[in-house]
Parts: sequence; structure tokens; C-alpha cells
Amino acid sequence: MRFPVDLSLFEGTAHSPSFLNLQRSMNRGDLALRDYCIPVNPYFPTERMFAGFRAKLKTYMKYYPSQNSSLSELLARFLDLDPNTIVLANGSTELITWADRLFIRGILATPVPTFGRWTDQPVESGKRVASYVTRPEDSFRLDVDRFAAFVRRQGARVAAVCNPNNPTGALLERSEVLRLLDLLEDLDLIVIDESFIDFADPEAVPSVADVAAERPNVMVLKSLGKNFGLHGIRLGYAVACPGVAAELRRAVPHWNVNGVAEMVLREVVECRNEYERSRRKVIDDRVILEDELGDLPALRVFPSRANFAYVRVEDDVDGTALRDHLLTEHGCFVRQCGNKLGSDGQFFRIAARPADEVEFLIDALRSSLRELSAVPEAAVEHRRVLQRSVAAGARE
Amino acid sequence: MRFPVDLSLFEGTAHSPSFLNLQRSMNRGDLALRDYCIPVNPYFPTERMFAGFRAKLKTYMKYYPSQNSSLSELLARFLDLDPNTIVLANGSTELITWADRLFIRGILATPVPTFGRWTDQPVESGKRVASYVTRPEDSFRLDVDRFAAFVRRQGARVAAVCNPNNPTGALLERSEVLRLLDLLEDLDLIVIDESFIDFADPEAVPSVADVAAERPNVMVLKSLGKNFGLHGIRLGYAVACPGVAAELRRAVPHWNVNGVAEMVLREVVECRNEYERSRRKVIDDRVILEDELGDLPALRVFPSRANFAYVRVEDDVDGTALRDHLLTEHGCFVRQCGNKLGSDGQFFRIAARPADEVEFLIDALRSSLRELSAVPEAAVEHRRVLQRSVAAGARE
Repeated sequence: MRFPVDLSLFEGTAHSPSFLNLQRSMNRGDLALRDYCIPVNPYFPTERMFAGFRAKLKTYMKYYPSQNSSLSELLARFLDLDPNTIVLANGSTELITWADRLFIRGILATPVPTFGRWTDQPVESGKRVASYVTRPEDSFRLDVDRFAAFVRRQGARVAAVCNPNNPTGALLERSEVLRLLDLLEDLDLIVIDESFIDFADPEAVPSVADVAAERPNVMVLKSLGKNFGLHGIRLGYAVACPGVAAELRRAVPHWNVNGVAEMVLREVVECRNEYERSRRKVIDDRVILEDELGDLPALRVFPSRANFAYVRVEDDVDGTALRDHLLTEHGCFVRQCGNKLGSDGQFFRIAARPADEVEFLIDALRSSLRELSAVPEAAVEHRRVLQRSVAAGARE
Repeated sequence: MRFPVDLSLFEGTAHSPSFLNLQRSMNRGDLALRDYCIPVNPYFPTERMFAGFRAKLKTYMKYYPSQNSSLSELLARFLDLDPNTIVLANGSTELITWADRLFIRGILATPVPTFGRWTDQPVESGKRVASYVTRPEDSFRLDVDRFAAFVRRQGARVAAVCNPNNPTGALLERSEVLRLLDLLEDLDLIVIDESFIDFADPEAVPSVADVAAERPNVMVLKSLGKNFGLHGIRLGYAVACPGVAAELRRAVPHWNVNGVAEMVLREVVECRNEYERSRRKVIDDRVILEDELGDLPALRVFPSRANFAYVRVEDDVDGTALRDHLLTEHGCFVRQCGNKLGSDGQFFRIAARPADEVEFLIDALRSSLRELSAVPEAAVEHRRVLQRSVAAGARE
């Protein structure tokens, strides 16, 4: 073990352990892990912006943040939407939690694999999730007609679709999303989670936020942390018609957006060009990452339109062994997707990074794959242990 | 107007406008307002700690914060409590919101005047608040027996008491709180909001968090932003028996505590002595503030055990005129309590500040009071307008 990470941190959570906790677990200030798990935007905010944040930090830590409504006005001008259709939140996860409380009754239909909060949150609050399985042979593309028929068959009154999907990166084009909204126009609510949509297309971002603002049963969610590369600040928003937005805004706690998130928002609305440049560079990085991964014969790469790649490692290398080997021998943290409904431990989500970091990862992957495929019995035994622990987890 | 603040920011909110929004409204980088509204701890975090925060800022902004449970363990060690009895939150207001959703059925009983979220939140979610009025002639002290009898009469199943109270600063000693908990031991829940309790006593902080951890129907809430002088970071916690804490922890959104709040928490647990010193200095400041205010004949000062003073200005000076005069002529922002249930526009909450800032405020108050009491007719007319607008607000 060149990187003595505490691997037990991977146990007992539906999400990944946090990068910082893995780093801390080594207790080695001299060894830095590399993060390919959390897809952040490495080009934004710029260093100039960070310098500004440091200068203003004390003020924004000391004073109460503004109320939700005044921040919504600020964001509305940036997005060119009516402020009455926008609700800001402490990360998109806060919006998922409240959307579940307020609007989901009985059954939620969602394609899987997908973001864990969509499959877990409704169950935690006593509802049922009807999972529509998208398949590797279709490159995980969602068939809109079949999904709509599935929603009917299941009797679901609410549907949620991540677009592009997380972790597969599969995108529904805007015309297809609009067709889905038409097919399901009698539902209580259709949520389109567009947290990764800024990385779908360098030219026209295929968001349907404008449509959500006008339809009575559509809500678009977005995590700003993901666009901006700032997962720690907790900032997300919902777009919905004024009635639905008002119900949501009344429910979320006052001052739910913290001062540092407000500071970022106030700065970001002034830096549209810097953000636009960063977004395009991330898309370039993802294209390069997919190309490079595609050169490794042991991996199958699925087409992604987000800021990460989705790959499957062939069965003669155990997925967990690969995750651990990459981490402990090369210091590379990747997202193994074994604990996601509709996925298994052979699938990985790999964040797009600048070219030199991709090169480092590809070398590490080559080396780990070579070493692990040389001892197939060990990998198989390791896999058996994994399956038992996954099955135990599923029973909990 | 030496300070051209946009006074319309005071309209249409049950809370104060944010200090930063008032400052921004002047559009004058050269003029700095002084904040006596929000009671912060000016001695904490120390400048050394802020330097550390700036150095680590990028990391904590970039990466996901830890899950609630691992942060609870950290805080539990600091507080010497069982981690299973602690739930961390995005400010104590998030906990009030969820406590309302999960535990309040029908009627909440609370003494007034008090923190606005306790009187407004249950009403916003369709419940009734039974307000027990504490009176200036009793120095706003809560009579435990009478309050318990009131709870019974009203048929409330949940009670909430801020201790020390906000905005009056009135404290119930620990023995009295315990007696109240005994008197109401059959209720569904009694919440003791101890957000300001660290400033109640320089020696022994009279918290009942230890009792809350062991009783099935008691919850202690605390806003860490108020102790630490960091309202922008949004950090608070609840202490309750493991069963109640688990229900609350299941409900609050994942990653509800942001990365910067986590950074602060990790630092604060290492700086117990610095915090303790700062706490005592704030208490000294409050004692000085009350003494100085007591020397102004136009003000009546009520005994406070928090980090602010509570005063009433005599009727021949209009409260709103005083608030506006202090702000626009002296740049001093104080909390007029006219929009609080059980209070009126003649009451003010004034934050404890270091001695030189208290001196500045006292001079400003003397000057404003002298000027306003010289034109009693103008003040009376101004007051009539105010009363109409307050009455209109109450009808909404």
C-alpha cells in the first residue's frame, strides 16, 4: 500500500466516502490523493475569483445571508427567468428532500441507475420507487415512449429523470424531453434534474427550464455546485411555475442559502464569460477522457454528455479490487458504482480532468488492470466477498 | 441623511433586513454602517483562525462536506455527549422547520415576544400558535407554573421556550427549566432553544442539553452561528434522546451542513480556550452596555442574560423615527422589535459590542433622542403612520 487509505470508509454508505475523509484517513500530510470521483469544474471559479472570496470571507461568514427571495431575483436576472419561478436551496439535495415531502404521493417512477437521492429519498419517507432499468446494450439511453408506458403501468403520479443522467452520462435531447412532458402531462409532477446539463453541448445547452417555468406540473432542478466546481458551498435551485415555486419556497427553511454560497452567487453573475469558457474546456476534457479510456481493451466506455465518463471493466478483473488498487497503489480515487440500483460493481464513473491528470489516471489504470488480471483467482475470491457484503447491504 | 440607506428595506419582512443589504443600498463604498442589530461574538473566531480559514477555503468549497453523522461525532466529543443524541443542521432555523414538520401537531405554546420563527413557522404550515405574553412589569420573566397551566388550558401538545429569550434576554435558571420539564412531562415535545445560553453566565452555562439527551420528550436547539459570531455559515444542532434524534436525522437533507461550516467546526473543537475567553468578554460587554444604556433617562433597560440588551424608549419619542435617525444620521443599525408578536415599536434589541463601539452608540443615541424629542408632534404623526402599517401587517 503506497497510499494507506482506510478502505473501511467505503462500507455502509449509499454514497462515496468524502474525498477529504479518505485523505484524512491516511494521516499523511505528504501524500495527496487525486480525485476522479467527484466531477468538479477545475477551471472555475478562477484564481482571481478565489482571491476575491478570501478577501470577503469574513464578512460573509459573520453576517446573515439574504433571504431566499432576494437571492432568487439575482439568479433570475442571470438566467433570464421570472424570479417567481425560482427557488434557491442548500444544494439540489435539499430540493429533492422537500419535493419528496410536498409533492410525491405513493409512487415515484425513475430510470435507473441514477443519482442515489432519487432512488433512496422517497423510500426513506415511506413511499415506493418504481425503477425503470436502462441497459448497457442501449448505451443507457432512455426510450421516452417505453418509460411513459412504464409510468402508467406502475400507477406513478410523479416521475424524476436526471438529464444528463448520473452516473451514465446518457442525454435525452431537448425535443425528447418535451415529448416526455407531453406524454405525462396529466401527472402531478415531472422533475427533470439538470444538474449536469451545462456539459451536454458546447453550443446550445438543452435545458427545459424555460418550459418548467410555464407548465403546471414540471420542475427543473439544478445543482450549481456541480457547474461551478464547488460542492462544498451547497447551492442549487428549482425552476417551476409560480404556484409550485411558491409552495416550495414557503416550505424550505429561511436563510437556507448560506453566506458563502451567496458570496459566490453574487460574484458568478458578474463572470458569465469566465464560466462559459470553463464549461467548454470541461467538455473538451470529457471528450479526451472518453477517447483515452476507449483505448484500454479491458474497459467498455458508454457515451456520456456530462462532465464524467461511465465505463464497465470486463469481468475477469474485479471492480472492487480495481477501485482499491487504483486508490492504494496510485492514489487515484474513482467512483465504483456497485452500490447504485441498476448498476453493479464493474461499473465506474470517472470525472473529466485536465489532460495531464487524465494521462496519470490512464497509466495507473493500465498498471492496475495488468496486475489484477494476472491473478484471476484472487480477483474472483475478492468479488465473492464483495457480493456477500452488497447483498447484506441491500437487506438492511 | 448622512447615510442614504434605502429605508424601504424595512418593509414587508418579519425579520430585519440584512446588514449587508442595508450597506449595499447606500451604494457608497466609503460609508460603513455599524451593526448593533445582529448579536455576534466579535472576539471569535480569532484572526489567527480566520487566516487558517482563508488558507483552507478552496478545499472546503470544492469538495463535498461530510455526512451529518460523522460531523455529529466530532461535535459530540466537543460537547461530551453521545453522538446518537446530536443532529447537525444548516442553522437552527432548519431544525425549527423540521421539528415543526415532524413533531408539532395542532397547537404549539410559546412565550412571547420571542424569536420570530417560533411564532411564524407553525402558522405557515397550518398549525396554531398559542402565545403566552410575558410582561415588562415582570422584566419578561417566565413564570413556569403559569406557563404550564396555560399550555394545559390551550390543549397544546408541544411547547417551545427560548432560554435566554430573544429578544428580551430574560433567563430561566436551570432549576426552573427542569421544573418546567417535569410539569410538562406528558407533552409530545418541549423544545428549549438555547441559542444564546453561552452568554448567560461566565461560570456555569445553565444548559439542559444533558437532560434532553435522556428524556423522551425534550429537545434542546442551539445555533452555533450565534456563539461563534458566524451567522453566515449556517450551523446549528439539536440534542434529544436517540429515538427523537434519529427521526430528525433521517428527515433533514443529506449534506445539509456545508463545507465551510464543517471547516469551522473542525477548527473550533480545537480552540476551546479561545472560545471560552471570547464568551466571557462578550458577557462583560453586555454588562457595560446595559450600564451605559441605563444612564439614558429616555430608555428603560430590562435585565438580559444574552449577548444583547433589551430596552424600551419612552412614548414621546417614536420608535421607528429613532431607528431611522440612528441609521441615517449616525450609521447605527439597531433592531426595532415592532414586528414581533408581544412587542411593539418602542422596544429595541441592541447587540453587545466592544467598549468603543458602545460609546459611539451611546453618543448617537443621546443625539438622536435629543433631536427627536424636540419635535414631539412630528414623532406622534410618524407613530400613527407606523401603527397603521403594523396593523395592516398583522392582518396579512
